[in-house]
Amino acid sequence: MNLLNKIVNTKKEELINLRRKFHKHPERGWLELYTTVEIIKYLDNLAYDLKYGKQILKESSRQGLPTDSEFKEASKRAYKWGADPELLDEIKDGYTGVVATIKSNKPGPTTALRFDIDAIGAREDCSDKHRPMRENFSSINPHAVHSCGHDGHIAIGLGLAKCVKELFVQNKLRGKVIFIFQPAEEGVRGARAMADTDILETVDYFLSGHIGFKSDTTGQIICGITNSLYTKKLDISIQGKSSHAGAAPQEGQNALLAAVNAVSALYSLTQHGSGMSRLNVGRLKAGTYRNLVPENAEIEMEIRGENDEVISYLFKKVKDVFKGIEDMFNVSVKMEIVGEASAVKSDQKLIDIVKGSAKNVKDIKHIIKEDRLGGSEDVSLLMEKVQNQGGQACYLMFGSDIKAGHHSSNFDFDEKVLSTAVQLYLESLKSLGNINL
Amino acid sequence: MNLLNKIVNTKKEELINLRRKFHKHPERGWLELYTTVEIIKYLDNLAYDLKYGKQILKESSRQGLPTDSEFKEASKRAYKWGADPELLDEIKDGYTGVVATIKSNKPGPTTALRFDIDAIGAREDCSDKHRPMRENFSSINPHAVHSCGHDGHIAIGLGLAKCVKELFVQNKLRGKVIFIFQPAEEGVRGARAMADTDILETVDYFLSGHIGFKSDTTGQIICGITNSLYTKKLDISIQGKSSHAGAAPQEGQNALLAAVNAVSALYSLTQHGSGMSRLNVGRLKAGTYRNLVPENAEIEMEIRGENDEVISYLFKKVKDVFKGIEDMFNVSVKMEIVGEASAVKSDQKLIDIVKGSAKNVKDIKHIIKEDRLGGSEDVSLLMEKVQNQGGQACYLMFGSDIKAGHHSSNFDFDEKVLSTAVQLYLESLKSLGNINL
Amino acid sequence: MNLLNKIVNTKKEELINLRRKFHKHPERGWLELYTTVEIIKYLDNLAYDLKYGKQILKESSRQGLPTDSEFKEASKRAYKWGADPELLDEIKDGYTGVVATIKSNKPGPTTALRFDIDAIGAREDCSDKHRPMRENFSSINPHAVHSCGHDGHIAIGLGLAKCVKELFVQNKLRGKVIFIFQPAEEGVRGARAMADTDILETVDYFLSGHIGFKSDTTGQIICGITNSLYTKKLDISIQGKSSHAGAAPQEGQNALLAAVNAVSALYSLTQHGSGMSRLNVGRLKAGTYRNLVPENAEIEMEIRGENDEVISYLFKKVKDVFKGIEDMFNVSVKMEIVGEASAVKSDQKLIDIVKGSAKNVKDIKHIIKEDRLGGSEDVSLLMEKVQNQGGQACYLMFGSDIKAGHHSSNFDFDEKVLSTAVQLYLESLKSLGNINL
Amino acid sequence: MNLLNKIVNTKKEELINLRRKFHKHPERGWLELYTTVEIIKYLDNLAYDLKYGKQILKESSRQGLPTDSEFKEASKRAYKWGADPELLDEIKDGYTGVVATIKSNKPGPTTALRFDIDAIGAREDCSDKHRPMRENFSSINPHAVHSCGHDGHIAIGLGLAKCVKELFVQNKLRGKVIFIFQPAEEGVRGARAMADTDILETVDYFLSGHIGFKSDTTGQIICGITNSLYTKKLDISIQGKSSHAGAAPQEGQNALLAAVNAVSALYSLTQHGSGMSRLNVGRLKAGTYRNLVPENAEIEMEIRGENDEVISYLFKKVKDVFKGIEDMFNVSVKMEIVGEASAVKSDQKLIDIVKGSAKNVKDIKHIIKEDRLGGSEDVSLLMEKVQNQGGQACYLMFGSDIKAGHHSSNFDFDEKVLSTAVQLYLESLKSLGNINL
Repeated sequence: MNLLNKIVNTKKEELINLRRKFHKHPERGWLELYTTVEIIKYLDNLAYDLKYGKQILKESSRQGLPTDSEFKEASKRAYKWGADPELLDEIKDGYTGVVATIKSNKPGPTTALRFDIDAIGAREDCSDKHRPMRENFSSINPHAVHSCGHDGHIAIGLGLAKCVKELFVQNKLRGKVIFIFQPAEEGVRGARAMADTDILETVDYFLSGHIGFKSDTTGQIICGITNSLYTKKLDISIQGKSSHAGAAPQEGQNALLAAVNAVSALYSLTQHGSGMSRLNVGRLKAGTYRNLVPENAEIEMEIRGENDEVISYLFKKVKDVFKGIEDMFNVSVKMEIVGEASAVKSDQKLIDIVKGSAKNVKDIKHIIKEDRLGGSEDVSLLMEKVQNQGGQACYLMFGSDIKAGHHSSNFDFDEKVLSTAVQLYLESLKSLGNINL
Repeated sequence: MNLLNKIVNTKKEELINLRRKFHKHPERGWLELYTTVEIIKYLDNLAYDLKYGKQILKESSRQGLPTDSEFKEASKRAYKWGADPELLDEIKDGYTGVVATIKSNKPGPTTALRFDIDAIGAREDCSDKHRPMRENFSSINPHAVHSCGHDGHIAIGLGLAKCVKELFVQNKLRGKVIFIFQPAEEGVRGARAMADTDILETVDYFLSGHIGFKSDTTGQIICGITNSLYTKKLDISIQGKSSHAGAAPQEGQNALLAAVNAVSALYSLTQHGSGMSRLNVGRLKAGTYRNLVPENAEIEMEIRGENDEVISYLFKKVKDVFKGIEDMFNVSVKMEIVGEASAVKSDQKLIDIVKGSAKNVKDIKHIIKEDRLGGSEDVSLLMEKVQNQGGQACYLMFGSDIKAGHHSSNFDFDEKVLSTAVQLYLESLKSLGNINL
Repeated sequence: MNLLNKIVNTKKEELINLRRKFHKHPERGWLELYTTVEIIKYLDNLAYDLKYGKQILKESSRQGLPTDSEFKEASKRAYKWGADPELLDEIKDGYTGVVATIKSNKPGPTTALRFDIDAIGAREDCSDKHRPMRENFSSINPHAVHSCGHDGHIAIGLGLAKCVKELFVQNKLRGKVIFIFQPAEEGVRGARAMADTDILETVDYFLSGHIGFKSDTTGQIICGITNSLYTKKLDISIQGKSSHAGAAPQEGQNALLAAVNAVSALYSLTQHGSGMSRLNVGRLKAGTYRNLVPENAEIEMEIRGENDEVISYLFKKVKDVFKGIEDMFNVSVKMEIVGEASAVKSDQKLIDIVKGSAKNVKDIKHIIKEDRLGGSEDVSLLMEKVQNQGGQACYLMFGSDIKAGHHSSNFDFDEKVLSTAVQLYLESLKSLGNINL
Repeated sequence: MNLLNKIVNTKKEELINLRRKFHKHPERGWLELYTTVEIIKYLDNLAYDLKYGKQILKESSRQGLPTDSEFKEASKRAYKWGADPELLDEIKDGYTGVVATIKSNKPGPTTALRFDIDAIGAREDCSDKHRPMRENFSSINPHAVHSCGHDGHIAIGLGLAKCVKELFVQNKLRGKVIFIFQPAEEGVRGARAMADTDILETVDYFLSGHIGFKSDTTGQIICGITNSLYTKKLDISIQGKSSHAGAAPQEGQNALLAAVNAVSALYSLTQHGSGMSRLNVGRLKAGTYRNLVPENAEIEMEIRGENDEVISYLFKKVKDVFKGIEDMFNVSVKMEIVGEASAVKSDQKLIDIVKGSAKNVKDIKHIIKEDRLGGSEDVSLLMEKVQNQGGQACYLMFGSDIKAGHHSSNFDFDEKVLSTAVQLYLESLKSLGNINL
């Protein structure tokens, strides 16, 4: 058993405890207040160099923010859960997430590791069949549940940080390692604001990973995701003018009718010769009273595309439709991008390094070199940033036996994956030159 | 001063007190529990023959019923306000309204008088400029306000019942007089269920009236409304099937898209050679999550027409559209009529009788023979019933200085109209042969 | 029998002959070449002061012009029918119609009389039941037929001109009389171009009339039309870009889809509180091949309104729709007004004068003072011009027994109306002060 | 040089002459009268056993037939070009195409070879840059041109038949060879009617090929097409009822509006999780006059899909849309399938045989084993028939330098391909056991 094995072995129980603590206290995107405060406290104890709040998030780039009342409710809840009030004050109203850095005195590459920290907005299964219920770590927030495994990601990040600290103390660290705890991955909302700051500026290598998904067996690993869907999530608000529908219909500017005509046109846009193209209007809400010409309409929609050409075409056409609708119905339209992802494209060199590293992890029994991802992940924006400045990036999948599909109310994973993932990260850091045994 | 004058004069203060009591306790349509109980108690004291509950409302004909939780909340509120629990039990869950009859021993016609009793679902103006606030009779129900004057209609009905009782005692009554206190006029929802029972079966004459509207000056009277708009209020619910919009769009049955296509088609229906035609989709709500094919849609709409031909045409075409949509998008559609009115068509003979009677009422300074009504009134369904069986009907307007338009949060009227209206009803009953001085 | 009677009596046969000659040689709007040449020749013989061609038609205001090949075909036909080649050359390509003036030396008002001269684009009934067939004056142009009575209007105009000339010679004329022979009334296309010149500049009184329509009984007269529908006829052309629908749908700019979305939106525009409102898309043609994204679309439509407010609202909204469509589908749209009429509003003073004059015409048995017109007439534009400069205008109906509805292939009228109309015009000119017996 | 080489060498000039003769006399699908007669005459001279007319085409399965006047015009033209009148009579009105069989006395497999014979409905380039113009074999039919190379296919078929006959005479033929000359491949209209007869019943092997397309270089060969798009071509006719749009819009049943709403809905159908999906409405024509509610609409459209699931889903949904439209707008809809193809799926064993055979053809320099076809080919229906009864089928591409894209007005190919194709067919027949040298 090598040194890295040993280091990890001593963390196994803590990894599980960390995961369960965060599982019990889930918070939705941009509302990860308790979560962020606990991460800060944990890493501060390890003497990491910490940044958070407006230092790590470009204010205007934050996408899909909650409402004011959701912000307030989240603050109250975190306060009730015992989060430090002063820290809370610095991160409330949409400034969650942490960036922690450790720097050795010796030369070596800068490697960034990213962990997403938000939960799903749903209620957890409360039957006895569900282990978190039986073993008493199920969600105490009725509006959220960690049913996508991000609780595990936080635990992996913190446990790994502890290991790296130990190696630093033992003088075995080289270069710099950056731990990025990203908010609001669900709805692909949080990465854009981090990518638009300087936190990734000097990064040579970027690694991130997900528990489960395309790899639902404990002991399996997918070394690199080589493609996924481009996507944009859009909120559209149409403002018209109300009037009495019986007496003066001509005085109204019918926002509902504008929305209806827009949606009709939107669904004609998805034929593209260069690849798969998707558009969905998931929600439409318009009007107030039966006898008034509706003055407002709200649309929640998304577009997806197999490649950059498709998504760019679709996005332009969607904007064209709403531009035209303004003239057609004399309404004003506001469009907001509330989530965004490009394609995850892991670099071959990093894939090979991860593959080589995986061979040194005893618990990994089945290594898959690469695969595509059916859905979307905003880690793509961070990877792209690193890749555009000459660095390399890789997004992996940590196999784990899954009880139910991601986002199900009774989702649960095999906690063995936690230590396996930490070990693979350590082996990879070694391969990259950040750890010198 | 004649006898009728004298009788009314002694009621002036009580009329105002009654109006203010009901103004303070407003209840929305089908929820007029306290209101109904108080009317019953008042008329029971006068020994009227009373009917209420399922005796006066055909269960399946009640339109636009509230939700279960609204029913429950209303019961609690009425109980809190002191309404008799046993009576409450008989009328709860949508059986409000009262029919009260007084019958003399002498021959004479049967005349029905109708008063609507429901309030508007809004919050009352709470500034000091608003008299109900200053004089302490403003609404204590945050969800309702008598901003259409029906509080006045109840007071007129009860005050008139007291006068008629006195005349009965003095042996001056002939034939039969029926007082109908109708629920849920707002949204034209309540009359249909009363019209579908036998309460109007032997009626020779039918009178009803409204404070204000086309007559907004105290002392003015419009003797008969000769036309108004036919209307139908429709709720449509579309049920489809959800699926993941990115992975399996073809597995969904898109209810939002069905709604959008239906609305688009609906708005093409309003051209008709025989008269004015209106259609409005006031509300549309569809879908749940951004990334799911929407499985449900709810539409609230109304149609109006200048005549029976127009409204029948429109209603048929609306049904055609939704029938077609079921096939087109493989969804199922439910349509409910939640309100309905035909045209108010007062009989000329009754208009003339009201006109003659008005001349005997000192407070009436300006008599207008007839006018049309821009909007809709479900009294039309009751009038039609009487007219179809050979009787005559008339709908009048009692002029009153108005502080703000009907349905405004600061609506208020000149209470002088209360006694004027009672007196005009009495004079009309005399002209019709129900009172013999 | 008065002098005017006598003068008309000598023209009865000629009136019928004239009508039948033009009936036999019908020509559609802007193609009335033979017709115009014959009118010129007739009036030139009477020494009228004549204007035609670009003097009486503003080039850019001519609406709904035929195609080049239709122009060419019409020239050939008129030439074949014996029309003077030099005159033909001056009026070909859309410059038909004549304005003829006669001026006395004595003071008096200026009165304009307008006669429309075009035929309908259809084939005449060729059965023996149809009198023009039996009596050998049916259309020899397979593409046109005088099935709206304009042949009669021309005959009335020319016969009247001859009568007026006789009165002039007898020194009985006062002031000035202007005869306007207007092209292209069908489709309300010709009046605009005449109204936009100076031919009506000094006109005090304006009279025009139609055989039949609301008055389908010989001997009847309607003295003035007091309302009719505003209308605009619009041709819209949408230009997009073609692409292969299977391989590269995204490269196309789909003109058919733009048209479809536009039409859908258009039909939602016809609800207006101030009066009747109509919109019809009569024709739509789009696309070339099944497997190409359609690059073009052509729309023929019309709007109508009860008043100026309605038509202005509708026209603005129609323009808004097509402006919006350009952005929505990245197409370019051209809109052309190909016909236009405002409301015919006869002045009361003139109506009274016509009414008084009608009493002097023996053949008129039934005088109706005024009526509304269900359809549209571009005489309204000429009347409006006169009225806007302070003059008065009146549009009448000459009753005539009708064999079949206007525009039917077997339309025919009772030719008695010709002399009755001439006589009524003469009596009216007398009442107005243009004739002094 | 082997025997097959020698046989082909003597045919080179004739192959070119044949191609040019058919190029000069192009005829559109189902109108290949001259073409069919000439094929019959040629093969009759070679004593082939011939079938044509209703023997080889199921009457009710013929798709996308021309109009009666097109049939008549084609008969006249073929007669003028000298086609035998008696034969003409048997094949006119949509019974073109020939099936020719040659049978040896010795055992061996039955192999069918298919050649499509129709031209494109367009005008040929008439500039001197275009070789057919310069060398005097350009189209003498102004309505058609062989711009897809089917003239070459006919020549290959006839030349090959002559070679096979020579081998038969030399006693070198085994089994049976069937030559199928298929009409109306353009628009994928002709194969269905042939597949629905018994002409393929005993076929073991089926070969067909196309000049050019994915192989635009002389000397190249693609041995087997392994996939192509499923498609259906649909003509839809909507019948409503006309009425006057101003006076009685409600009496119309608006076919144009029905079409517009249908098209709007159709374009929302193309998202499918299992593969590429296409829909195009290539033409829409509706309405007659501007002022009438349109009573008719004609739609020409197509759908395509990457697999059977997609095309079946799309076709069902398209039918649903039109079923729904009937109810929505009270119109009646007729839908006709005017063309159809499934996916071309060559069998691997035959691909290998063709590949092996190609190596023996000197003029073939570049052998590509297999490829997919972007478009659609109705040969798929014939292949499917053979494959479903246990036989094997293969569709190849004969490389040829192309002057301009297929279907261009100046399309032309390198005629060298003619002899190369014949030789490859002969080598393949040898490999299959039909030729025994």
